[in-house]
Order: sequence, then structure tokens, then C-alpha cells
Amino acid sequence: MNGNVHTRVQVPPGVQCFVGPEARRRRRIEDRVLGVFEGWSYEEIIPPLFDYADVFPEDLASRTYSFVGRDGSLLALRPDFTSLLAKIAAGRLLDRPAPIRLFYSGEVLRYEPPKAGRQSELYQMGCELLGAKSLDADAEVLAVAAECLEAVGARGFVLSLGHVGVFSALAAEAGLDSDRVEALRERIESKDEAGVREVLRGAAGPESQAALERLAALSDDVSRIDEAKAAVAGSRGASLALEELQGVIAALQHAGLGEHLALDLGEVRGLGYYTGLVFRAYAPGLGFEVASGGRYDHLLARFGRPLPAVGFMLGLDRLALLLERQGEDNVPEQPPADLVAGASVGDRLRAALERRRAGARVRLANGRGPK
Amino acid sequence: MNGNVHTRVQVPPGVQCFVGPEARRRRRIEDRVLGVFEGWSYEEIIPPLFDYADVFPEDLASRTYSFVGRDGSLLALRPDFTSLLAKIAAGRLLDRPAPIRLFYSGEVLRYEPPKAGRQSELYQMGCELLGAKSLDADAEVLAVAAECLEAVGARGFVLSLGHVGVFSALAAEAGLDSDRVEALRERIESKDEAGVREVLRGAAGPESQAALERLAALSDDVSRIDEAKAAVAGSRGASLALEELQGVIAALQHAGLGEHLALDLGEVRGLGYYTGLVFRAYAPGLGFEVASGGRYDHLLARFGRPLPAVGFMLGLDRLALLLERQGEDNVPEQPPADLVAGASVGDRLRAALERRRAGARVRLANGRGPK
Repeated sequence: MNGNVHTRVQVPPGVQCFVGPEARRRRRIEDRVLGVFEGWSYEEIIPPLFDYADVFPEDLASRTYSFVGRDGSLLALRPDFTSLLAKIAAGRLLDRPAPIRLFYSGEVLRYEPPKAGRQSELYQMGCELLGAKSLDADAEVLAVAAECLEAVGARGFVLSLGHVGVFSALAAEAGLDSDRVEALRERIESKDEAGVREVLRGAAGPESQAALERLAALSDDVSRIDEAKAAVAGSRGASLALEELQGVIAALQHAGLGEHLALDLGEVRGLGYYTGLVFRAYAPGLGFEVASGGRYDHLLARFGRPLPAVGFMLGLDRLALLLERQGEDNVPEQPPADLVAGASVGDRLRAALERRRAGARVRLANGRGPK
Repeated sequence: MNGNVHTRVQVPPGVQCFVGPEARRRRRIEDRVLGVFEGWSYEEIIPPLFDYADVFPEDLASRTYSFVGRDGSLLALRPDFTSLLAKIAAGRLLDRPAPIRLFYSGEVLRYEPPKAGRQSELYQMGCELLGAKSLDADAEVLAVAAECLEAVGARGFVLSLGHVGVFSALAAEAGLDSDRVEALRERIESKDEAGVREVLRGAAGPESQAALERLAALSDDVSRIDEAKAAVAGSRGASLALEELQGVIAALQHAGLGEHLALDLGEVRGLGYYTGLVFRAYAPGLGFEVASGGRYDHLLARFGRPLPAVGFMLGLDRLALLLERQGEDNVPEQPPADLVAGASVGDRLRAALERRRAGARVRLANGRGPK
């Protein structure tokens, strides 16, 4: 039936399966995160697992599992929740006044090359605050992210903050072509100042060049934001972006979250639909982010309801791995099960039901079949 | 991008979406059902969302969403959990001794004709007891099913019991060809005694014919099992099947579950991999079953680990609908949210964090964007 040969019990590359303690550990993480979302008045949304393929971001198209529906439409398994929620907010929830706070928890599916060793199924939990363009909204989702990480027991986590407007203003003002912009993103993300100089050679004025070079170096303590402001002082767009970011940082510091903040103006790749604040959460023990998010003020307009928006998501798989590496992944305890015996099937079942009514876990000592 | 035209916010037929109170109601039902599974020592398994297409039952093939993976294999979104769990028990869990008790909770996907108005996404919760071929095992899963229905607040539910062996023995002994067997299944399921007679005319001996006719009528109180035994007395296979069923009924009656039992020997269609006991749960207010299950002793052998098995699943969508119709679907209450205000973003955020630490739900009174 299949093109490739596989044994009866082999599994396709990239799929996941969790049993027993692993499943309980994941449920506990999920419960705690969703409890935080609810605590900040976000409402759960359970969106469809697939939708028309054109709902999803173009930059994910090559990694989207698509198939043809019975009516001939091209459908796709969701590779992302944010677009789906934006569409629902603009459709089904059109009558609901802004701001709208929504959270979700579920799987996304991404086509990964078979040899990449990456998961095709990713479990994401996230929240979106739609219809609020304010420092409050940006600060709120960062506070929610911090509380989620605290609630699951992640130690030493850092919210690394950036703003899409800094790089995009500098790149636009330098008049760079799109190939050079992409090359530049890559060099900045790699913190490669020499590489940045190389890409910009002869293509940008000295002031733009100096400011863009600085971006690669500006990943550090939030106190360096003043240094960053000085470096981009020649760009009105980049200065405004940094002022916005500074306002968010000040609010979070005032609220006591300063110790969890870092600045990273060098994270400029893979930002898709983001338009303002962007952030990623890191913690000791894991070399990649466990959460990421930001502001996306243009996405809802695509679905006919122009609303600003900000949100973030946590990867359950990554969180579970982080907690395991931090030694924090104790499996939730279960009460021991009463082994129920008796002379006949009816007696055993009656005893089990009595124990259940008394609130016990039971395990029926019933007959075994062949192994 | 799509073959068919759709508006920006239109959704494909058959997909589902739940928001706020609807999502909370579903989570509550799920929590209660999974709590019962855990109470009987079943362990959660979170299986993959897709697998090789040949894992799934052939009789679901026409309703399975399939697609080609990167390595050229034909993959399919799970249309069913039972086959997936059987495969995992025979592969990943091969070292685990029987009996193995597993439960699952998640979506299955089925291709439905666009005009059928049926859901393509179905949310199922179920449990499987693998490696136990005994009355205990059959009685146990029925008791678990009854407790699940009780736990969610379903009133007046009935577990309608049958046994695959009754019809299959009678049909085999009557020497009917497969077309006639299918026609017969349909007439029996429709409780159409005259139709049964019509199908059997000239094709079966008078004793087989009389017994098969009776099946269509035998859906009623479990006390009629003696009448059924008399009707099939000429068939050793059918008699053995009824004796097995009688043993299960006696155990459940002894344990105090008699009031929830009914007999239905006329449910003989769509039984796929079942080999023994079969059952469906009904309750007043819904014209179709909310749960179904049975014994399937040959499925695991397909994956190389011949183990007998019995299990059942509840449809979350159907349960939610049933409870709504029974007026039992109160949305779980949430504590009211404190509306947090303050002079500045930092003040508001600080106040919110203080209220959160005190265990309150909060709602930040933050700025609104354009509608």
C-alpha cells in the first residue's frame, strides 16, 4: 500500500508517541500553563485541525502538509495557530468587541525532511491578545509568558526582547535590495559583525552601516538599550521602535520582572508576520527557545478585520525537555491502585465498584490471555 | 490557491471550532472521563496524529485522509485509535507484559462527503484492555463505560449488548454467500423480520431461518437472553456466544449495574474488527450511540503480537450534545476576574501580578485598538 517499505510496527519519521508517565508529565505542564492563561482572563479556543491552505503563512507553505478535500479545495493541516485564530476572530468572532483574549493548546504539523531528525508533530500552547495596540498589551503577554515559565518550574529563564522596527527601519533607510537584506539578517543573527560589514560594503552610508553593525553586538542586558538608541539615533523609525521597547521594559521592571529580561536586537530572522515587539524565552539547559512571540498588527486585516494583535506560544515538547534537563520533571504521583480480587467475576466487579465509590483507584486482577 | 472559491473567513465543511464556554464544557467532560480511566488503572497514551496508511482498517480506507510523506510513503491521518494502539502495543510496548491497560483522548479525522453535514473531525476518548481474554475483562470495560457516563452526568443511559459470534455462526452454518450476508445484516439491523425472511428465501434451512429472523426481534431486556438461547439452540457457535454474553450480564447484574443493561442481538453491521462482545451506549435525548466498543481478539496479531483485546470509546462531541439535550451541560464556573487599573502601565502590571500571586483571576484594563 505504501511507496516505501516499512515493517508492521515501524513508525513514520517525525511522529511522536507518549505513554504513561511521559503523558502525565505533559498533561501537568499543559494544566499549569493553561491555568495561567485562564488566570489572565484568556478564553480557550479549540480551532480546527485543518483549513484551506491559503489561510496559513506563505513562509510555511513548503513545510505544510496539504491535501485535496472532497470539494476539490486545497486543504492544509495547521502548521501554526496564530493565522487560524486571526481568521476565526475575523469570522466567527466578528461580533465580539475588542480586545479579545484567546488561548489554544494543541498540535501543529510541519513537513520536515526525513533526515532532519525533527518532529513533524509539535504541541503548542499559546495566547493572543487581539485588538489592543498599547504598551499594556505588549507588557501583559510578556508577564503571562513569565508566569507560565514560573508555573511549570523552569529555572533561570530569560525573555529576550527585540523589535522588528529597528532592523526594518535601518534596512529601508539604507536602501538595500531584498537579497542584501536577507544576507544581512543572516549575518546579524549569527552575531557576525565582520560579515555584516562585508554585506554592507559600498551599499549603505556610513551611518546606516555603523548602526546595522551594532545590532549584531546588541544582545545583552536591557541596560544597553541606551547604547542602542545612541547607535540608531540617525534613524527616526529605529529610534521610535526602541522607545516603544524601552517603555515595555520599564513597565516590566516596575512590576518586578526585570531580572528575567534581556535585550537582543540581533534576532531578525524568521519573524514572518511580526510588526513590533518580538521575543523569545530561553532557559539554562536548552540551546533553543522554549517560547516565542510578538506583535503582529497586519495579520487580521488579511481576513477583513484590521485589528492590532500580540501573542506568544510555548512549545510543550521543548518545555518538557527543558524541565527534564533541569531535573524538574518529576512525574505527577498517582495514588496506588487497590488490587481487587474475589471468588467470581461478579464478586470482583462488585468489590471494584465499591472501592471506586469510596474514591480509590482500582486494578482488577483479571485473567490473562496468551502473551 | 484553492480549486474552489471560498471567502476569506469561510471554513471547510466538516471542521469544528469551539470557543470559551463551549471549550470549558468539553474540557470538563474530558477531565471526568479521563479521571475514570485513571481510576481503573488505565495509562494514558498520546499516539501520533498520522501513520502509514496501511495501519488503519480497510473498511475506513474510503473515509481516510491520506497524503504522501517526504519519503514517498502513503500516510494517513488517524481515522481510528484502536488500530494505532494495537500497533504501538505490538511495537514500542512489546516488552511490557500483558495485560496492558491504555487510554487515549484526541481527534480522529474522517473524510465525509461535503453534503452529508457530518463532522470530519471527531473527538474520541477511549480505553483498551490488551492481553486479557476473560469475562472479567469484558465486564470491566462495561463497568468503566458505565462509570464514565455516570461521571459526566448522563441520565438514563443503557449499555446495549450483543455478540458478533451469534450472527456470524448462524450465517456461516446457513452457508450463505457474502452478498446475502450483507443484505441480511442490513435487514436485521433495520429490525425488519419480513425483510430477513425475504433475503433467506430458499437459501437457508428452516432452523437457520427461524433463528436469524429472531435476531431482528431480540433487542430488549436482558432477561430475553434465555429466549435467544432457545432460538439458536441448533447452532453450537451461536449458543457458545450467548453463553459468554450471559456470563458478562450476570457479573454486571451481580455488581449492581443491571439497570443499565439491554440486549441487542440485532446490531450486526459496521463491526469491523470485533470478534466477541459488542456494545453501544444510548441515552434519552440522542438517537445514536454515545459510546461503543467490544472485543477484538485478532487485531494485534496483524502487527505481530497476538493478544486478545477489548475496549470502547466515547464520542466527546456526542456526549456534549447529549448533556446539552438532557439540560445537564452547565458550563463550569470560573471565579470572576479582578479588573486591574492603575496610573501607568507599570502600575497596572504590578497590581495585576500582586493579584495573581494572591490567587486571583485578573483582567488588565488596557488600551484598545481600532475595531
